[in-house]
This record gives sequence, structure tokens and C-alpha cells, in this order.
Amino acid sequence: MNRKMVYFLTGRIVLLEGALLLVPLIVSLIYRDAGMVPFLITIGICAAFGGLLSQIFRKHSPVIFAKEGFLITALAWVLLSAIGALPFVISREIPNYIDAFFETVSGFTTTGASIVSNVESMSHSILFWRSFTHWMGGMGVLVLMVAVMPNLPGRTIHVLRAEMPGPTMGKLVPKLRDTAKILYYLYFLLTLMEFVLLLCGGMPLFDSAIHALGTAGTGGFGIKSDSIASYSPYLQWVIAAFMMLFGVNFNLYYLLLLRRFRSVFRSEELWTYITVVLAATGLIAWNIYPLYRNLAETTRTAFFQVNTVVSTTGFATADFDQWPVLSKTVLLLLMFMGGCAGSTAGGFKVSRLVMLFKSIRRELRRLLHPRTVSVVRFEGKAVDDATLNSVSTYLSLYIGLFVIILFIVSFQPGFNFLSNFTAVASCFNNIGPGLDLVGPTRNFAAYQPFFKVVLSFAMLFGRLEIYPMLISMSPSTWTRK
Amino acid sequence: MNRKMVYFLTGRIVLLEGALLLVPLIVSLIYRDAGMVPFLITIGICAAFGGLLSQIFRKHSPVIFAKEGFLITALAWVLLSAIGALPFVISREIPNYIDAFFETVSGFTTTGASIVSNVESMSHSILFWRSFTHWMGGMGVLVLMVAVMPNLPGRTIHVLRAEMPGPTMGKLVPKLRDTAKILYYLYFLLTLMEFVLLLCGGMPLFDSAIHALGTAGTGGFGIKSDSIASYSPYLQWVIAAFMMLFGVNFNLYYLLLLRRFRSVFRSEELWTYITVVLAATGLIAWNIYPLYRNLAETTRTAFFQVNTVVSTTGFATADFDQWPVLSKTVLLLLMFMGGCAGSTAGGFKVSRLVMLFKSIRRELRRLLHPRTVSVVRFEGKAVDDATLNSVSTYLSLYIGLFVIILFIVSFQPGFNFLSNFTAVASCFNNIGPGLDLVGPTRNFAAYQPFFKVVLSFAMLFGRLEIYPMLISMSPSTWTRK
Repeated sequence: MNRKMVYFLTGRIVLLEGALLLVPLIVSLIYRDAGMVPFLITIGICAAFGGLLSQIFRKHSPVIFAKEGFLITALAWVLLSAIGALPFVISREIPNYIDAFFETVSGFTTTGASIVSNVESMSHSILFWRSFTHWMGGMGVLVLMVAVMPNLPGRTIHVLRAEMPGPTMGKLVPKLRDTAKILYYLYFLLTLMEFVLLLCGGMPLFDSAIHALGTAGTGGFGIKSDSIASYSPYLQWVIAAFMMLFGVNFNLYYLLLLRRFRSVFRSEELWTYITVVLAATGLIAWNIYPLYRNLAETTRTAFFQVNTVVSTTGFATADFDQWPVLSKTVLLLLMFMGGCAGSTAGGFKVSRLVMLFKSIRRELRRLLHPRTVSVVRFEGKAVDDATLNSVSTYLSLYIGLFVIILFIVSFQPGFNFLSNFTAVASCFNNIGPGLDLVGPTRNFAAYQPFFKVVLSFAMLFGRLEIYPMLISMSPSTWTRK
Repeated sequence: MNRKMVYFLTGRIVLLEGALLLVPLIVSLIYRDAGMVPFLITIGICAAFGGLLSQIFRKHSPVIFAKEGFLITALAWVLLSAIGALPFVISREIPNYIDAFFETVSGFTTTGASIVSNVESMSHSILFWRSFTHWMGGMGVLVLMVAVMPNLPGRTIHVLRAEMPGPTMGKLVPKLRDTAKILYYLYFLLTLMEFVLLLCGGMPLFDSAIHALGTAGTGGFGIKSDSIASYSPYLQWVIAAFMMLFGVNFNLYYLLLLRRFRSVFRSEELWTYITVVLAATGLIAWNIYPLYRNLAETTRTAFFQVNTVVSTTGFATADFDQWPVLSKTVLLLLMFMGGCAGSTAGGFKVSRLVMLFKSIRRELRRLLHPRTVSVVRFEGKAVDDATLNSVSTYLSLYIGLFVIILFIVSFQPGFNFLSNFTAVASCFNNIGPGLDLVGPTRNFAAYQPFFKVVLSFAMLFGRLEIYPMLISMSPSTWTRK
């Protein structure tokens, strides 16, 4: 294993974090709030630690393989969160380090689950940093590194593949660096569009920035105790629509830019995603209509909550924990589906579901006609057996890990099954709120420190799609040659 | 499709049911209870209907394929339950036909979920028939037919394969009919052993018969409102031990008879099963000890409840709905695992879990070393890719179907998520009780008729491992040539 390269790139990523911390530092200067010193200290730590790592492991072989890609990704994400938690602690706005770590992991992984009970009393720059982690984590910190740092050594494709969600990675253009740049360009553009639309709707400047960052990363950290509920219907529609848009594969936006409308229009994943969102909205609207008795409000509330769950964002305009069991069940099922591959959304991903459905059809055909060979096609292309099997195996792994985490969390005293189940589902799928004790009006503060760490790792496992974390936590990775 | 053969064999199976109904008829004669006339009428219906079908479709081609195997199995099970429900209705002991159908499906599929609220007032022969369906359904009605009916035409292997649980079917001996005979011989022997041990423990004759039949099929219908709780500790241990034994692959008992101890000892599935049962017992005993404060009682209660769930039987000696959330979570997870392949237990099956675990390991190796070919071995033999993929696809199908049934059942008004979730889990895995509104001290009577039918089909899907029901319910099966 090329350890030097792993540590070198991890050092680089810490340096990048130091640079990114300048943004909330500027915010703290503008608002003259308590964030200035904490951000300065953290930037100093990043510069020292990152610089040291890069310097020590300066000399390294440029050759890396899949294993190093997984390791770099896992290590980078844990370290980014561990360091990113410092401003919360130093500013005493989240005095407990484990709480701050939970909050930062929740930020980077775009989960949005929180342990903060009085978010409205926090200072601007700290709130900004919290939401900024959503934005970076949404598209990927390593993707950002590839986009902005010149002359990175080695085969960074292994790093990108490990960080980007979905069963396969689509390169938009031959050069990897250009792919990363295009993705971030599109991402920035969409975020800016939402920001402007929110401003136009009369949302204050700071609020607009926070919510645009939180929507773009499909994160969900807000700045009000009631999340989005107190904003105007127009603003709620804008945020709901953008949550849906950020759950779409970014490759499709690139194709739109290239005016390849037919390819976009034919995307099976997109159609499945849209169909599910609209069907769920209709069903829930029908189910909750007696609670609202106003068609406009019912539709908006249903559409918002469906999109917040399906895009794994986690903003809320209603306490869906109070809804009838049918609506709660639908939302819970959507929690597991998540958005499209190649989007900033978490969850199992629509494309995987479509492929599993096709695998089932193939298996049925095989059972009835054992001698017929049938080819599975997805998005117009034949999918090879290895990919199909990977997707099926991913499902096993996903469930296996979910069960293990749920089992561990069950040791937490005083919680019931529904709360634990939805807490794990919510963290693992990077959503934010669950049901009952972790419902939209509550938070995760009641879990004991140990379980907060477990749930933090659940978020990391979910965001990085299991393999990077699993491989870096397996002892054989570190002992074998 | 060879429709004639499908209808002919279905007719034969109805004739067999008529013959089997003689057993409860004899019971009703012994106890001189209300069952006599209802059983006579039902036997008459079986003879007329089954005889007619066999006669009309007497002339048929002997050639059948997998499709016909699935169809015969699905049709036979639905028909057996539809007719088997008649004695309950005619005797007015379960006056509503849908309730009786639910109860009979629950019997044949060895689920044990009940809509009867006052079981102690029912007559002996009706109770006997209820438990006798467990016994026949456990090892399989079509297996019984192959074992007892001479000169069955065609390739009955397709029928057996469709009815017998597990990822692969192991023929014990070259001739299929002999395999079926050996299985029923072992099954009868084990049932008899339990019956005698229960008698020796002072359980009344009728009770011993009922509980031996219910344990053997891993069914769970009892004759007391508190299930097994009022019987002596000795009797509880006997039933718990036999629940565990009936969750073991019957091929292993055959190997024991052949004195091939080494093969038995090396069975990965057996070791996994035993390890899980003991670990879960230990953990739950530790967790519930504060409720009992008596080591003997705690161990017995934990061991009993673990085995009732893992073997998908459904007898109870404690209301585990009142246990701490950790114990409830463990039981809920075990509900999905189920027993070994080739046993009378339901659920996902231990062997499938082991194979999925190995698929995951293979996928990890493939990710890290893309050019290495690794062979997966199970029970000492290499498992081909097709089998591994089938198992993975079965998981997708299992979850997909579970989600669809849960979604439909969520339309039932007045139920909460936990009750619906565990009701579906319990029916689909053929266990019996769930949690909360369908917990061990409650029953399924509160579901509306439509949802009782849905849950009945969930039981059939679970018992026949999805494919037979799915294929026979797909319109294309019936329209295409």
C-alpha cells in the first residue's frame, strides 16, 4: 500500500479545509460576531497540521489503486469533520466536543441531524460554517480538491470514484479535472439561482445564503427552530423545487448545457424519480387533506415533505410525525430510496432501485426459461453482470450495516423502536429528522455520547456509500503488505 | 403451457385433502363434538371437486417445466386453504368466511397468526384440524402427495422445487419419491418424539398432540389464551428445544441416520443457526433479567422466545411486547432471519444470509483486487455465480414485496407503524405474533377484511418463497402460449 500518498493527500485536504475556513471568517468579520477567533485558531491548526503532513510525505510514488482511493476518502472525511468541529467548541456555542463532532459530520455528510436545541441564539458565522459544510460535502470535498488544486499526483480517479455516489461513475469529459470543474460550476450556478430566487421572495440575505447552501448539498441545517415553516408559501415552493432539482443526476444538467435534450428526456432514472415524487405527493396530499382543509396548503406541505425526504435534505414545514400512519409509512419508505446517482442526495439511490427491479425481471425469466440469455439495459446501455451483481451486493451490505447500527443503537436506554429505527434510517441515509423522539420538532441531543459517535459513523458510512469506511476500518487493510 | 396437467394435479391435491380430513373427522368422533358434520360435508366437496378435476383432465401430456411447477404449487395452496376453511365456517366456530380463510392460510403456511379471540371455547376436532394444517404445511402438501400417491405423472421435481424452502433443493436419494418419503418419515419420527416427551411431562393427550403438530410445522396455533405460559417449565423447555430442532435442515437428520456425523458437524448453516440462537438468548436474558430476577426463569423465557421467533413458530410464554427495546429489536431482526433451508421454518433462511455475507466478501475482494478471481464456497462446495446472484436477487424481491405489502396494509385505519410493520413481518415470515396491536397477547381480528386477505397472501408468498405466487399472479403467465 502507498501510505505516503495517502497521508500526503490527506494533508492536502486539510490545507484545503483551512482555505475554506476563510469564508466563515469573512462572515464573522462582516457580522463582527464571536466566530472570528475560533476560525483563526482552526485555520492555524489546518495550516500547521496539513502543511506538516504534506511536507513529511512530499516524496511518494504517484501510483495508487482502488484501496488507496478508499482510504484517502475515508480518512479525509473523518479528519475534516474532526477539525471542522473545533470552531463550535472554541466558540463555546457547542461546548461538548462529541456534540460538535456529530454536528460537523452531520454537516459534511449533508445529513442535517442536529443536537442544537436553540439554533436561533447561535452567531452568524458559526451558522454559516455549519451550512457551508453541507455545500462542500454535497458535491464532495475531494471533487473540489481535484477541481481547484493544480498538479495533483497519481490516479485521482480512485479518489473520485470512492467519494461520488451511485453504482457507476460517469466521466463527463475525458479529463478528470475538467469533469470536477464542470460539476462544481453547475453546482455553483444552481445554488446561485436558488439564492437569487429566495432573495427575490423577500428572504433576508443571510437566510437566503444559508438555505441555498443547505438545499444545494441536500443537507437541511436551518436557522429557525421551526425550520422553513415560518417562511412564505412562495419561499417554501422555491426550496421544495430546488430540493427536487438537487436530487437529480448532475450529468443531466451537463447534457442540458450541451443541448442534448433527448438524452435527458430519455433518462429512466429521472422518470422514475419524478414519478415517485409526484405519486407520493398526490397520495400524501389525499391522506393529510383532512388535517389542512385547504388544497393549496395541503399540496405545498405534501410536496415539500416528500422532496425533503426523497432528496434527503431534511428541512421541514410540517411536523409529519403527527400525520396518519399511511403518510408516515410512505415517507419512511422514501427515506431509504433517496435521490438519483450523481446528485448531492443520499439514500440507496433511484438508479440502484431500477437496476434491482431489472435484476428481478431477469431472474424470473431465467427461472421460467433457463436456456434463454437476457440482457439488462439501463439508460439505453447494456449493463454487464458485474455491475448488476455489485448493485445486489450493495443492497445486502446496506441492509447488513443498517441492522448492525440499529442493533448497537438499541442499547441506548429510554428510546423506543420507532425512534431508534428512524434515527438510524435518517443518519444512514443522510436525511436529518426521523420520527417520534427524533421527529422534525425534536433533535438528537438525548442520545448518549457513545451513540452520537455511532450515529456520526452511520452518516459517514451512508455518505461515502459504505466501502471507503468499511475498507479503512478493516484491520487487514493496515496490516497486509 | 401444460394447463391440463396443472388442473389434473390440482385435482389430485384436493382429493388428498379430502383424505386428510378423515383425521379430524376421527377426532370429532372420539370427542363427539360439533365437528363431525362440517368435516363430512367438506370431505364430500373435496371428493366431488377433486374427482371432477382429475377426471376431466385425465388425458394430459406428462411433460411439465418450471412454470407449471410454480403454478401447481400456488394453485394447490390457495385451493387447499379455501376448502380447508369450510369446516370452521360450517361449524360456526369461525362464522365469517374471510376470517376462516385467514386462519386456514395461517395454518397451512405455519404462520400461526390468529383472528380467534376465545380459542378455549372451540371444539376439539376443529382445534385439531387447525393444528393439523400446520403439520402438513410444514413439510409440504405436495411433498406429501409425491410421497404417498403412486404413479404420479411427469417431472414432479418442478413441483417439489417450487414448494420446498431454501436457495437450492437437495435430493437425498436419486429417486424423488424416496426423498419425499424419507423426509416425511423423519418428520413423523421427530413429531412423535416430541409428543411422547410432552406426554411424559404430564401434558394431557390432546394438548400434547396439538403442540407436537404445531411445533413440528413451526406453526404456533395453541389451545390456551396464554399459549404455552401456563405449562410447566419442563414442558416449555421441551417445546423450545423442538422448535429449535424443527428449524434445522432435514437433510442433516438424514445424514445423522446414515451416521455421517462429520458432514453434520461441519455444516456452516447449522453452526451459524446455533450461534445466533445462543447469542440472542444470552443477550436477551441479560437484558430482561431485571424483569424476572430468577436465572432459571430468565434463561428459559429468553431461550423460548428466541426459538419461537427464529424458527418462526409463534408460541409464547411471555409478552415480549413489554420487554426493553433492545430485546424487542433483537427479536424483530430474528423474525427476518428465520430457520435453516430445508426445515419447516419460514423467514429469509440462514443459508441465504451466509451466502450474502460471502457475496459481500467477494465484492470487497473484487473492489480491491479487480483481477483476482475468487471462488465462494458454502458447505464445502463451490457455489456458482448463478446461485449467488439468485440469492441476492431474492433479497431484492423479498424486500420489494415486503414494502408493497406494508404499503397496502398502511391503508388500514387506526393502526400505528410498529403494529403494521410487525404484522407484515410476522405474516410474511410465517411467525404469528408481532408487536404492539398484534403482540403476543393480541391478535389480527382488528384488521378489516380486505387487509386480512392481503395478509393471507403475504403468508402464502412467504411460505412458498415468492416465486410460485408471483408467477401465477402475473397475467403474462396465463395469456402467453
